[in-house]
Amino acid sequence: MASHFADRICKAVKEKKTPLIVGLDPVYSRLPKAIRSQKGMNDSKSAAASIDAVLDYSMKVLKIIAPLVPAVKINIAFFEKYLWEGVESYYSLISEAQDLDLEIVGDVKRGDIGHTAQSYALAHLQNPELKGFEDVLAADAITINGFAGSEGILPFAEIADKQGKGVFVWVRASNPSAAVIQDFADASGMKMYEKLAEITAEIANQSARIGTSGYSNIGMVVGGTTSEQTAALRQKYGKIIFLVPGFGSQGATAADCMKFCKPDGTGALINASRSIIYAYEDEKYITQFGDNWEKCIEQAVLDAKIELAKA
Amino acid sequence: MASHFADRICKAVKEKKTPLIVGLDPVYSRLPKAIRSQKGMNDSKSAAASIDAVLDYSMKVLKIIAPLVPAVKINIAFFEKYLWEGVESYYSLISEAQDLDLEIVGDVKRGDIGHTAQSYALAHLQNPELKGFEDVLAADAITINGFAGSEGILPFAEIADKQGKGVFVWVRASNPSAAVIQDFADASGMKMYEKLAEITAEIANQSARIGTSGYSNIGMVVGGTTSEQTAALRQKYGKIIFLVPGFGSQGATAADCMKFCKPDGTGALINASRSIIYAYEDEKYITQFGDNWEKCIEQAVLDAKIELAKA
Repeated sequence: MASHFADRICKAVKEKKTPLIVGLDPVYSRLPKAIRSQKGMNDSKSAAASIDAVLDYSMKVLKIIAPLVPAVKINIAFFEKYLWEGVESYYSLISEAQDLDLEIVGDVKRGDIGHTAQSYALAHLQNPELKGFEDVLAADAITINGFAGSEGILPFAEIADKQGKGVFVWVRASNPSAAVIQDFADASGMKMYEKLAEITAEIANQSARIGTSGYSNIGMVVGGTTSEQTAALRQKYGKIIFLVPGFGSQGATAADCMKFCKPDGTGALINASRSIIYAYEDEKYITQFGDNWEKCIEQAVLDAKIELAKA
Repeated sequence: MASHFADRICKAVKEKKTPLIVGLDPVYSRLPKAIRSQKGMNDSKSAAASIDAVLDYSMKVLKIIAPLVPAVKINIAFFEKYLWEGVESYYSLISEAQDLDLEIVGDVKRGDIGHTAQSYALAHLQNPELKGFEDVLAADAITINGFAGSEGILPFAEIADKQGKGVFVWVRASNPSAAVIQDFADASGMKMYEKLAEITAEIANQSARIGTSGYSNIGMVVGGTTSEQTAALRQKYGKIIFLVPGFGSQGATAADCMKFCKPDGTGALINASRSIIYAYEDEKYITQFGDNWEKCIEQAVLDAKIELAKA
């Protein structure tokens, strides 16, 4: 763990020969019937049954994807809705993913200032040191919200540095209404998200934060659906790893997403969530694999890798 | 709970005769010695001891402040750093505060889009319906991050509406570096935070969201230290309750903060955190009350109420 987050990610991308990562945001009602009909997991009105099912499914997904992709992005909101018990499951998944040699991005979008930001960083980036939590691991990197400027980013960056971990600042979202705020432009035509990218890059480009791969441990989240406006960021910020959501279900094409990679295939993590983890709802895969939901997911990962490789 | 959040808050402000609310963001190392030396709570390296001490202290603070102020703001980051066990404590505090008839603002600053935002809203605004969580309550209102625009606000607003709860959109932070992003201005001089306020107000001003008090259940968080630029918001958005952090330790004066109230004293919640909850570190109170830390906190609340009433 004393190694550099960006170096670990670059190595994993090369080994798995893809920038594709899988996003885990499981919803009980969409889990495979084979999971939801298991004893103790077949009561959608019970917290324990729901959590057990979501966790069982997620653990199985991790095993399927681990040989195929460099990283998993775990969306904590889908666990946090089960209160503290869901949060415990989130950390269990991190440990499992670590055992499977996946890099782990905790999609937590935390953001605040000062001591509050520092407390969030302790929760989500620092491997716990307190007695009683010795076996718990935090994610390798997390997403954060940089709305408060550098004072909202630095407390996370500093703990990430010490832990050999990473931070992805949410710079440009992929939803339509985000444009009203994030494309808000000044008199020179500079947009708010470009300003936020500039602030982030200033922190990211500090030489102590650059690994032997040439990338910083501080990256940016930039939506794949906005690629026309934002591919310029790739050009401008050579040391930044972009985390790109929106491939698949959210409508970004492989070509859109691949604009964030450098010619050698590094520099971006392209995330697909629902198009992969619910592949067993897709007629295309049902025809091939019937109710073998694991095979459906595996094939969807392989297909997405090929699609990105072609682009 | 079927009542309207803004109406409950207005009633509580009138009953307690103050817009002052107390922010709970406790740190183990600063807890009173009387707490930290208790059996089972005297080991700063143990998770269980730290959490028990923080929870014991927080419960006692709630009892002190409940007769004096309309609401408590609980900062989840200071609990979340103790992982799921801290999150469980956060919900215990909500139940206790509810029993003490305090309105509860969960300072969680969650922010995302679509299903993710909805999941966060389920975690933090909806009183759980799943078996196993019957006795758990969510906060009366939470703070959120509106960086993704209306699509990032509406999923929270809609669940708040159904639950008789509230949402405070973080519009302007009180830290210096926030200005770089939040004061980012367009060609007409309009600032990004003003745009965000406009988007928030459009959602807040829907007639179904306005209570009999004349206020919406959707409010805004605006830092007290920026009062010169932002008191204009009070004038412009008559139906908005402002949650104003920064009174006391963060440097905003009573006069700064009171600009967010209407002449009848409604329309704002003025939050003081460290100046109240660590009052027993203040020479002024030590001289008066010695090591009676509860008395120090009580007196600090009374003093802050008087300071605001004078302004």
